[in-house]
Amino acid sequence: MRVTPPHLTSEQRLDGGVRERAFTLGEIPGILWTPAFASASAPVPLILLGHPPLGLRRMYPRLVDRARRSAADGFATATIELPGSGERPRLPAVEEARAGLRGAREAGEPVTDEIIDALVLPLADQAVPEWRSALDALLSLPEIGGPVGYSGGVLSLGVRLALAEPRVVAACLFAGSFVPRAVFEEARQLTVPLHVLLQWDDEGNDRQTALDLFDAFGSAEKTLHANMGGHTGVPSFAGDAAARFFTRHLR
Amino acid sequence: MRVTPPHLTSEQRLDGGVRERAFTLGEIPGILWTPAFASASAPVPLILLGHPPLGLRRMYPRLVDRARRSAADGFATATIELPGSGERPRLPAVEEARAGLRGAREAGEPVTDEIIDALVLPLADQAVPEWRSALDALLSLPEIGGPVGYSGGVLSLGVRLALAEPRVVAACLFAGSFVPRAVFEEARQLTVPLHVLLQWDDEGNDRQTALDLFDAFGSAEKTLHANMGGHTGVPSFAGDAAARFFTRHLR
Repeated sequence: MRVTPPHLTSEQRLDGGVRERAFTLGEIPGILWTPAFASASAPVPLILLGHPPLGLRRMYPRLVDRARRSAADGFATATIELPGSGERPRLPAVEEARAGLRGAREAGEPVTDEIIDALVLPLADQAVPEWRSALDALLSLPEIGGPVGYSGGVLSLGVRLALAEPRVVAACLFAGSFVPRAVFEEARQLTVPLHVLLQWDDEGNDRQTALDLFDAFGSAEKTLHANMGGHTGVPSFAGDAAARFFTRHLR
Repeated sequence: MRVTPPHLTSEQRLDGGVRERAFTLGEIPGILWTPAFASASAPVPLILLGHPPLGLRRMYPRLVDRARRSAADGFATATIELPGSGERPRLPAVEEARAGLRGAREAGEPVTDEIIDALVLPLADQAVPEWRSALDALLSLPEIGGPVGYSGGVLSLGVRLALAEPRVVAACLFAGSFVPRAVFEEARQLTVPLHVLLQWDDEGNDRQTALDLFDAFGSAEKTLHANMGGHTGVPSFAGDAAARFFTRHLR
């Protein structure tokens, strides 16, 4: 198979010896962060950074924090824009499902499985092959090598990607709100080591869904870390623990 | 208050620079482990090691593993025999409750709140003041100083001790089977940082009780680490995480 390397569009050095490169893969924008020491003779493992579908620009501050931390631990990180987000063309089916979600919430009605499926599945269906192609492209760079991890908040993408992509050998998953029923079935088939983060008092997330999904994961090594602090208040020691998870599995 | 220091009955050096001293406090036997470097000019924090009421002799292998690990992290550890265990006189009320538990199990009947209360509360009522006296005695040794942690599997003792004893500033609690209703109320009053370990597929433990108790804890910093591996199969990385919890809070 002929792999097209990422088309690098800009490069900058960040504090702390991190090299940030923007790239495109066809029409999909992405960002790659590597430790300054990474080279063809010292390739580093890669962690794919998942994120909610709010657009890379809006997510950048949180993504770059995670990238800096991973670079300090000796890992490259990369992410791409999700279908329908940022500058990418909207997905009409997903937009419609979002309107349905807003309508249900405003009417105080329950968010049905149908709404969740429509919100998540078309996006995941399109995103998984895109992230796999991104992986092909990124792994063609000489300074990237070794096993791949996935770290992200979109459980449906994380589960599907880890299931579809044998190069992903470990995943750190942040508990998210909307888990389609199909993802529970896929979760049972997973075998890679999992590190699951749950913000215990996150009002936007359903705790029981997160616990049920953790229970469903088929992996022999799975760990749940539940912490206080709300949706974006993951304590720094929880980030440290996730970093050690990747150090155990990607080194 | 006049504090009686522990009566030291034997001493040995273990591999890895650990000093193990057996002691008695009145009729209660105990063990103290200290890193070899601990001295009056370099006192170390203390972690009290809780354990199930199976007798110190039977629990020794697991306790000494935890003690070695803690010594490597720069902590002293100590434990004492629980009331009614080991060579100590039996507690008739607790023996009767155990017979009730066995009877219920053999008959396939549910373990009632009354049985749980009778099993746990008299033991905790007697143990808490004993552990506090042990703390007085151990802190009178010049090589022990600084804040105190509790690490143990007997949630009822851990919760009550952490609540009653202001010198305990952090607690690592292993989810246990039998949690009296009163302990849920006490859990809400706790404020010290908590690190809670749950073996997710531990058949002898009720998972929902553990999750409910974690939810009840009043502490602003509380973390739940759930892992696979059965009751005694806590993975080594979970022990590492517990050690880092104490390093964060006792240093």
